Amino acid sequence: MRVDHIGIAVDDLAAAKRFYGEVLGLKLLFEEEVPTEQVRIAAYDGGGMRIELLESTSPDGPIGRHVATRGPGIHHVCYQVDDVQAAVDRLAGAGVRMIDTAPRPGAGGCRVAFVHPKGARGVLVELSQHPPGGLPQAH
Amino acid sequence: MRVDHIGIAVDDLAAAKRFYGEVLGLKLLFEEEVPTEQVRIAAYDGGGMRIELLESTSPDGPIGRHVATRGPGIHHVCYQVDDVQAAVDRLAGAGVRMIDTAPRPGAGGCRVAFVHPKGARGVLVELSQHPPGGLPQAH
Repeated sequence: MRVDHIGIAVDDLAAAKRFYGEVLGLKLLFEEEVPTEQVRIAAYDGGGMRIELLESTSPDGPIGRHVATRGPGIHHVCYQVDDVQAAVDRLAGAGVRMIDTAPRPGAGGCRVAFVHPKGARGVLVELSQHPPGGLPQAH
Repeated sequence: MRVDHIGIAVDDLAAAKRFYGEVLGLKLLFEEEVPTEQVRIAAYDGGGMRIELLESTSPDGPIGRHVATRGPGIHHVCYQVDDVQAAVDRLAGAGVRMIDTAPRPGAGGCRVAFVHPKGARGVLVELSQHPPGGLPQAH
């Protein structure tokens, strides 16, 4: 299990892209809109893992609600796992409170599941299994 | 510039260690107390970067205040840089609001500086230059 990406909720993707791309100088890997999550993503190379900037496309989406209540900031940490169903079963079996007890489709063909922050000492944790053949080139 | 570690504020280090070590199954790299930061650290291998659990040794320390106001959760993202003074000068020169305009000593012989969250789109960002010879073995 290794860190796949950090998800950062932003209120202004263009301004956040200037900070990460121009000021910090990180390399932009891809941009993508995920309608099911009501989010627009810009992903940067953090050195073997990604920094994913998340801008809500709707005030009612999970990122929109996060920004409204807590302001922009770090939203979740995602760990790559070989078998997301097995990881979910192991955590649920250990009594960890889950948001998803069955994996669902994520960006780039991944299968993902979220651990509830109350089950992970206050942190929203995502588990992600990459597609057979790996992520698409842009990912 | 690459992600060096994610700092996670916890309210109960023993319980958080059980989650990261036993439930997620990450490898514990080192534990350390940093009196100047009023914090006790347990660092785990996140795959080329570290997950650092931070428990305050005082309610008045930066982590103690964070937990009191926002609850436990992700506290900061640290990027490793080759030359922290040059990085600070570059960011300050770009008009980015800094907490530290001069580097200060961090754990493991690193020299570190923090960017103010208001200068980094809501995220507390740390910059860290490793010591000449690299981090001590335990780091």
